[in-house]
Amino acid sequence: MKYIQSSKNPIVKQWKKLLTKKERDLTRTYIIEGFHLVEEALKQDGVVQELIVVEGVEVPRTFEAEFITTVSAEVGSLLADTETTQGIFAICRQQEREEDIVESSTFLLLDGLQDPGNIGTIIRTADAAGIDMVVLGKGTVDPYNQKVLRSAQGSHFHLPIVRMDLEELIPELQERGIPVYGTALENGVEYTGVEPAESYALIMGNEGNGMSPHTLEMTDQNLYIPIYGQSESLNVAIAAGILMYHFNQNTPKRV
Amino acid sequence: MKYIQSSKNPIVKQWKKLLTKKERDLTRTYIIEGFHLVEEALKQDGVVQELIVVEGVEVPRTFEAEFITTVSAEVGSLLADTETTQGIFAICRQQEREEDIVESSTFLLLDGLQDPGNIGTIIRTADAAGIDMVVLGKGTVDPYNQKVLRSAQGSHFHLPIVRMDLEELIPELQERGIPVYGTALENGVEYTGVEPAESYALIMGNEGNGMSPHTLEMTDQNLYIPIYGQSESLNVAIAAGILMYHFNQNTPKRV
Repeated sequence: MKYIQSSKNPIVKQWKKLLTKKERDLTRTYIIEGFHLVEEALKQDGVVQELIVVEGVEVPRTFEAEFITTVSAEVGSLLADTETTQGIFAICRQQEREEDIVESSTFLLLDGLQDPGNIGTIIRTADAAGIDMVVLGKGTVDPYNQKVLRSAQGSHFHLPIVRMDLEELIPELQERGIPVYGTALENGVEYTGVEPAESYALIMGNEGNGMSPHTLEMTDQNLYIPIYGQSESLNVAIAAGILMYHFNQNTPKRV
Repeated sequence: MKYIQSSKNPIVKQWKKLLTKKERDLTRTYIIEGFHLVEEALKQDGVVQELIVVEGVEVPRTFEAEFITTVSAEVGSLLADTETTQGIFAICRQQEREEDIVESSTFLLLDGLQDPGNIGTIIRTADAAGIDMVVLGKGTVDPYNQKVLRSAQGSHFHLPIVRMDLEELIPELQERGIPVYGTALENGVEYTGVEPAESYALIMGNEGNGMSPHTLEMTDQNLYIPIYGQSESLNVAIAAGILMYHFNQNTPKRV
């Protein structure tokens, strides 16, 4: 078991770099923080590359990892993204398997979403709703961003999340006979009028601008959620939740 | 038209105090920021007490207020809650009319919610879903908190929002024949099995602990949203959105 005292240690500097998207993309790894996230990550084979524990923090016996490094409180506070850190971190491997696409029937596609809290909440909701796969298109925030990970509360480890060009994926799904639903007022039908089959793809657009014109052109049908009051729109995570639960309300429970 | 240059001006200090709940409660006023919120507030009679504009900021002609004060950029940045301020603020009157209760048929009751972003999003969603009134129980964050106001995107000005003891309100609603639905797994039925009448009250509980044991004892029925995947729960704002839209999906549109 290694011990690192100094925040100037080059390994610490390397970990710290994982707070940037550039380094995460380069190394295909990311860093998570807190007991709950680490616990969920450890349940998945091959995800956790290294466990990092601040000295004095008690680790549950069930937390087994190939590599464990103990660090000083100083190093811990350097890695922490939140003010109240639990003193436990893990370096994880990004596992984006595009082959999961062929085994999936229900898809949530994110088209240019920008708010990390929204994306995390949407991933958590997709997990709850029993969606098979979440696909993040170009211009959507990195799923391994700290705030996305925190908001998703471990759902990253429950369903496949991949980054792909949606304009390539949509025709591929349509060829397999999977209907692709956009979300837009233009040419849209009220969502309650649609009873999707067992397979479908649902696209949610950017918080301010909605879906990109390119993806919008490719959908089989567009849905909208009616506004009964005076608000101009719904938050995108709320809209995603309403639609996914409407689509899945007859799905048999998996657990 | 007044002009205030110095951030040491006692009026500025008074405005600044409105960033605290204590002062908001004492004066029954609150401060809002940004063109969109100010515009929505101005549409309601008697809400805006004073408009505050940073010098050089162009105010739309439609923005008419009894009192307008121009302030220096220094004063503006002192009042601003966000880093990118638009340089326009308003002091508003809290308008909590409990008499609105008797005129309302659909209620959303918040029982001990703590996250300002959740509460703001829930108020925005309640507005969209056509709920008549939102009631914040004891222990729920102040609706006039800056972050709540920002997340609600102006819905504060679209439907009545009151703070009340839920343990007093629930029996009152039940006496009027309005069914009160809690949200809990215990003694709960799946939400899709309930088709509420035109009037109902729905209670959402605290993010971590759910509803208080006292309010939970008083409900007519409890609802739950099934989890099809592996996530432990839904975000409370997402759950509120799914339930309100399920309840209101046959409601005629108002606008």
